[in-house]
Amino acid sequence: MSDPYTLAVDAMGGDGAPEVVVAGLELSAERHPSARFLLVGDEARLAPLLKRYKRAAAACTVRHAAEAIAGDMKPTAALRVRGSSMRVAIDAVANEEAFGVVSAGNTGALLALAKIVIKTLPGIDRPAMAGIGPSARGDVVMLDLGANVACDSRNLVEFAIMGDVFARTVLGLTAPSIGLLNVGSEELKGDDRFRVAAETLRNSHIAAQFHGFVEGHDIAAGTTDVIVTDGFTGNVALKTGEGALRLMGGMLRQVFSASIGAKIAYLLARPGLERLREWLDPRRYNGAVLLGLKGVVVKSHGGTDAIGFAHAMDVGMDMVVHRFNERIREGLSRIAVAPAEAAVPATQG
Amino acid sequence: MSDPYTLAVDAMGGDGAPEVVVAGLELSAERHPSARFLLVGDEARLAPLLKRYKRAAAACTVRHAAEAIAGDMKPTAALRVRGSSMRVAIDAVANEEAFGVVSAGNTGALLALAKIVIKTLPGIDRPAMAGIGPSARGDVVMLDLGANVACDSRNLVEFAIMGDVFARTVLGLTAPSIGLLNVGSEELKGDDRFRVAAETLRNSHIAAQFHGFVEGHDIAAGTTDVIVTDGFTGNVALKTGEGALRLMGGMLRQVFSASIGAKIAYLLARPGLERLREWLDPRRYNGAVLLGLKGVVVKSHGGTDAIGFAHAMDVGMDMVVHRFNERIREGLSRIAVAPAEAAVPATQG
Repeated sequence: MSDPYTLAVDAMGGDGAPEVVVAGLELSAERHPSARFLLVGDEARLAPLLKRYKRAAAACTVRHAAEAIAGDMKPTAALRVRGSSMRVAIDAVANEEAFGVVSAGNTGALLALAKIVIKTLPGIDRPAMAGIGPSARGDVVMLDLGANVACDSRNLVEFAIMGDVFARTVLGLTAPSIGLLNVGSEELKGDDRFRVAAETLRNSHIAAQFHGFVEGHDIAAGTTDVIVTDGFTGNVALKTGEGALRLMGGMLRQVFSASIGAKIAYLLARPGLERLREWLDPRRYNGAVLLGLKGVVVKSHGGTDAIGFAHAMDVGMDMVVHRFNERIREGLSRIAVAPAEAAVPATQG
Repeated sequence: MSDPYTLAVDAMGGDGAPEVVVAGLELSAERHPSARFLLVGDEARLAPLLKRYKRAAAACTVRHAAEAIAGDMKPTAALRVRGSSMRVAIDAVANEEAFGVVSAGNTGALLALAKIVIKTLPGIDRPAMAGIGPSARGDVVMLDLGANVACDSRNLVEFAIMGDVFARTVLGLTAPSIGLLNVGSEELKGDDRFRVAAETLRNSHIAAQFHGFVEGHDIAAGTTDVIVTDGFTGNVALKTGEGALRLMGGMLRQVFSASIGAKIAYLLARPGLERLREWLDPRRYNGAVLLGLKGVVVKSHGGTDAIGFAHAMDVGMDMVVHRFNERIREGLSRIAVAPAEAAVPATQG
């Protein structure tokens, strides 16, 4: 049994590391007074920061790691750097010194290290990356966001089960609805992977929650609470949606600075516009979780600030408080027969 | 040589057919005084409409078609309905009575009928659906938007060539930049289809325009003028982006109706907000073109109004005015060697 109160933190990952990480830790320590943190990184750089951030200093233990994984390092190369802050933090999860790890570093390296060092839960073929985003009807969980470029029907079924538990855990829903991302054209819907996965889910313990196929516009519409997709499509959809919101945000800034009238308009509409900005704030959705591993692994966006990093740590905390992995195991045991039947080779191409 | 001035129009396709179609034709007839239209549909329903829309009536010839393809009809079933308005309009292109066809009807049926009846250009393996959308740096062309769920490297290369000519034709660019949609993670970038397609493009006559891989956020950022992707990913990306913009639009309407202050703010910022609304207006981007066929095939959104339908007709006109198909043939002849080399079986999965 791993320590349920200690979260390992990669101090050297992300654009603003280690400053942003320690400032985020300060916020998180305030919010989670009983939590402990294992802060892994370059001691010489962390010591002066921990003098400034008193709460962070009180809540954490520092473990020195001389090296850091560069943002552009290939996963295969990252696996060979045994003394990196990311690796030492992940080792702490594998050794059960910590229940989980948060890193804003290289995504590919984190995925590869987590799979090899922490390992998958029994019954899970491949871990998936899950994230939360805004929709017209409340927050939406989407997975996989990029851990697996190609998935077969069994993987998609596992993602649905993990997504169900994730939405219960992090969004607090009692029976989240689940959609399988597909395209509208009748011709294309025939893709075997999707057909088989849908059939398996319709005969599973989460059949009542399974909405069937959804399309791209259903993500922001909030048609379902959980969107299940392969990692390639999920990654493109996530970034396309973020890009569209950013485009609109930029255009609105131009509109409200175009004239004196528009500037006055901004002041008048400010309360509502600020609420909208806060609601869509990417920091509020920061922290993608790698599901299906024997430990909690949270990937923070590399370009986030202390508020965003603290949010990623909150997500990690939620996962352990709500016994996420135990509930995944329960879900898997209930669908144990179906995925084996569904595990035909994917017919792609 | 097909009639360069006659566009066949499926009068019975789309939610508002035939009223929306005839009203759109009225607008189009005004904009293109030398154009002729072959309006195909139920004569009894079209006659009273053409009494109201005088310009449409003067510019078109009506051809009776007793049947219409329902929105939910499977493509295989649609192929068997020989007397449908969609089929008769497509037959007119195959018979060279018209240079192209516009329909707001069933997408899957239109794709299937166009491929079988009009046929692909020599050298094109599969047609692709291309559309235009807004970005921070001007309009962006994306293809395939859903004609092909799975593509190999040869298809992706052909899409790039067709996208290049399409962007020159419809956007009027002299050397459009081209990006191949992919995901960021190093592990995933290895997908052979993308690697081979990128390599072929780097050695082609459009090498100078080829930007390399782009990600989802690059679509709205306008990083490249053309985004090349397979039909599954393109369809999801298109609808996800549209959904995100619609979400933001809905939220803004709420903000500006929340209080008297906010309503006054709307009035003050109205010129800019209206310009933004017009710029993002989906009707302005209506009209996806099925490229690679021996004729111009334009798919209008089924839910559009007369303005949107007229825009789809404009797109069809642009294609013939700028000799789109002749230029595709030139592009293909220049890359003739490379795609053959690249046409290894796709390694997916």
